Amino acid sequence: MEMEQKDMSEMDRDIIDITKRIVLNYNASDQLKLKKTTNLPSRAEIIGIIKDIRKIMFPGYFAGFNVTYPLAEYFVGEQIIDIAARLKKQIELALSYGKEDIDYKGLKAEAERISMNFIKKLPDIQEMLLMDVQAGFDGDPAAKSKEDIIFSYPGFFAIYVYRLAHVLYKEDVPFIPRIMTEYAHSRTGIDINSGATIGKYFFIDHGTGVVIGETTIIGNYVKLYQGVTIGALSTRDGQKLRDVKRHPTIEDNVTIYSGATVLGGNTVIGTGTVIGGSAFITTSIPPYTKVSVKSPELTMRDGSKAKDKSQWEI
Amino acid sequence: MEMEQKDMSEMDRDIIDITKRIVLNYNASDQLKLKKTTNLPSRAEIIGIIKDIRKIMFPGYFAGFNVTYPLAEYFVGEQIIDIAARLKKQIELALSYGKEDIDYKGLKAEAERISMNFIKKLPDIQEMLLMDVQAGFDGDPAAKSKEDIIFSYPGFFAIYVYRLAHVLYKEDVPFIPRIMTEYAHSRTGIDINSGATIGKYFFIDHGTGVVIGETTIIGNYVKLYQGVTIGALSTRDGQKLRDVKRHPTIEDNVTIYSGATVLGGNTVIGTGTVIGGSAFITTSIPPYTKVSVKSPELTMRDGSKAKDKSQWEI
Amino acid sequence: MEMEQKDMSEMDRDIIDITKRIVLNYNASDQLKLKKTTNLPSRAEIIGIIKDIRKIMFPGYFAGFNVTYPLAEYFVGEQIIDIAARLKKQIELALSYGKEDIDYKGLKAEAERISMNFIKKLPDIQEMLLMDVQAGFDGDPAAKSKEDIIFSYPGFFAIYVYRLAHVLYKEDVPFIPRIMTEYAHSRTGIDINSGATIGKYFFIDHGTGVVIGETTIIGNYVKLYQGVTIGALSTRDGQKLRDVKRHPTIEDNVTIYSGATVLGGNTVIGTGTVIGGSAFITTSIPPYTKVSVKSPELTMRDGSKAKDKSQWEI
Repeated sequence: MEMEQKDMSEMDRDIIDITKRIVLNYNASDQLKLKKTTNLPSRAEIIGIIKDIRKIMFPGYFAGFNVTYPLAEYFVGEQIIDIAARLKKQIELALSYGKEDIDYKGLKAEAERISMNFIKKLPDIQEMLLMDVQAGFDGDPAAKSKEDIIFSYPGFFAIYVYRLAHVLYKEDVPFIPRIMTEYAHSRTGIDINSGATIGKYFFIDHGTGVVIGETTIIGNYVKLYQGVTIGALSTRDGQKLRDVKRHPTIEDNVTIYSGATVLGGNTVIGTGTVIGGSAFITTSIPPYTKVSVKSPELTMRDGSKAKDKSQWEI
Repeated sequence: MEMEQKDMSEMDRDIIDITKRIVLNYNASDQLKLKKTTNLPSRAEIIGIIKDIRKIMFPGYFAGFNVTYPLAEYFVGEQIIDIAARLKKQIELALSYGKEDIDYKGLKAEAERISMNFIKKLPDIQEMLLMDVQAGFDGDPAAKSKEDIIFSYPGFFAIYVYRLAHVLYKEDVPFIPRIMTEYAHSRTGIDINSGATIGKYFFIDHGTGVVIGETTIIGNYVKLYQGVTIGALSTRDGQKLRDVKRHPTIEDNVTIYSGATVLGGNTVIGTGTVIGGSAFITTSIPPYTKVSVKSPELTMRDGSKAKDKSQWEI
Repeated sequence: MEMEQKDMSEMDRDIIDITKRIVLNYNASDQLKLKKTTNLPSRAEIIGIIKDIRKIMFPGYFAGFNVTYPLAEYFVGEQIIDIAARLKKQIELALSYGKEDIDYKGLKAEAERISMNFIKKLPDIQEMLLMDVQAGFDGDPAAKSKEDIIFSYPGFFAIYVYRLAHVLYKEDVPFIPRIMTEYAHSRTGIDINSGATIGKYFFIDHGTGVVIGETTIIGNYVKLYQGVTIGALSTRDGQKLRDVKRHPTIEDNVTIYSGATVLGGNTVIGTGTVIGGSAFITTSIPPYTKVSVKSPELTMRDGSKAKDKSQWEI
């Protein structure tokens, strides 16, 4: 694709050079090679599926129209059919990406199986989520209503998306679980890896900065606050650590206050234990323990006689 | 709504079963019962109102068209009329949700009163916000201009939304204040409960992870950095603590550096005091005090003789 | 613009009063004066440019259509021409805002020069980003593929936007660099000032709460975790500190774990050093040092004999 260079301005020539270099870069990377990029799933489509499932799970909150019984079934049924088909398409793209000699018939059957398995789990997930709403309401004196939690609570949104993504993670679907949970992370500041296992009545209050690693196991009735990390001790070995249990186990009825860090694949926080804010924990804690941090000593200087008392010079 | 089951594939039958279970779940929850869901306010509409108010408060920044004097009044007046009507409709929905035997005439009058009261406060809020812009510019050497703050600063956006939501919180409007502040939380990582009381010249720098609880009282000329929590000591009593003052009072001219935590409804940070980064404070601090944290001791190991000096094995 | 007050309802009169007060506020602020606001750049347009550049740098991921070789050049070339023109327009608006007696010919030439210089750097930035993808994959055992990083990793998105914004920061373009990086901050919780200098193979894992100040210098092969602050010791002098080096230098091959804080313009973290989680550092650290925090002492209380063992009373 050589253009005639005569009669070109310097700017035209620059644009041609830049264009050629960008296209050449496509070949420098396995991730950008063009034949492969024809088969990537669509982030926008996956986010659309998350939004549409929310409309049928919580009718009236996000749908923008009324659902009146007994006609609800028409709407829900039609949506389910639509969502199953759209998800199947995205799973097909995810499964076929980068592969050669694809058995398209087998791949389509596999995508359909995974998509239907996902859809079948939606009623159970909806029931789990109603328990999560209850946990949020019971746990937060600032919650005026359970409706507030469904509408607005970032912790609830992150859990909703996690519970969907986890089904696809268990089926080893590439790309889609991560696209889902990072969408929730972007909207909430809560980073739950889709591989984590999380029980019933789960609540995250405020939530910004929470990180829950891939191999974390969390029981029932667990409550976390903003800035809590459930993480790995070290990830210096990078990809060699894949599939190793790197993250803690949190048993039932545990509360972890804001800014606490719990690290390590062998670390178990026993049932009924309360971890105080800003605690840094790398070993197991027995059940029914109250762990609090001896706060770092504060140094106080009296500035009341200083000339410049004001922080702001306005 | 029984469909004929003959001639159906297994997938068809699955979809019918899933649909029925989801619709049955609607009745298992007071939050999903269908007759109620006809009356919920619209999150999208409320976010639209936030955006449109910003266009008239800061013309030229977000409007996408020019506002030239003296015609500005036409545009502003028309927008005000429109916003008042849209907000009234949302307040009606919020007030009527879940209620039986509604006095619609009284409810509409109440919604109109609240909406007009809100609109009347907009010029004052605009003046407050111009002071917040000044506080941001004075407090941040990285601010190139006050325009940067209006356009881009997350702290300023969160304060803008909080100042709107607080008016509706004071009127006991359900749902809408929380939808507003959680929208700002989602966009900024700054979680200001609409119930908090916040004075003039308020600035939050960077802001991600900031939490300001419902019963917090903040004076004038206060500056917070990222990761600061103004929180409750414990919320284990859940809904029993509702309406109790659970969060601190921060007096005038206080600066609180990044990652500091100030907890408790009886905690008062005196005027002119500076709280150092990562401090953890659960008791009152007198005025004009410099509080700094004795940093946790650091352990240093010399790795310069180690074989593998590189963190990355690329 | 006086309207006839007879036949008006009280509400009509209120709306006129509110409108007049809002318009009067425009004149109370240099930022809102109406003649100036005709020249502000468009946040929406700038975000559109960020998205469109991503489509050509990572074809197939965000474009929503296939790019098949050899026709890729047509698409890329046409996009480059379009982006250059749109960016030039925004730079013109940014450069002319608030100025009087503008030499429009000179200003347009300057905007074109800056826009073309930006466009010329895109292939280099694309190459840098492919190295950042590699760093992310090597550093995170939870990364299933490099594609995951391009699609979903917030750290990668923040670095992408930073690398674009930094080019315009170096050219002293007002408003646009900050609009760009705060857009990324909003989507990721990662706040990288466009003035920072950042080397190759940079990776931020999880990322929420990360702050990297304006005068920070970061070498190659550096890895940061969530909640890390690379900040200034004090910004009490506000605008007087502008252009002073207020933020640390981080040399090559440094890893900084979650929640660590490194402050001060004279602070240098030597090559190969590892900073442990939650460390608070305000002085230089020699090369190849492992810095870990003596964790704050934990206090444990045995609650196993307490009557109320459950955190949740459901």
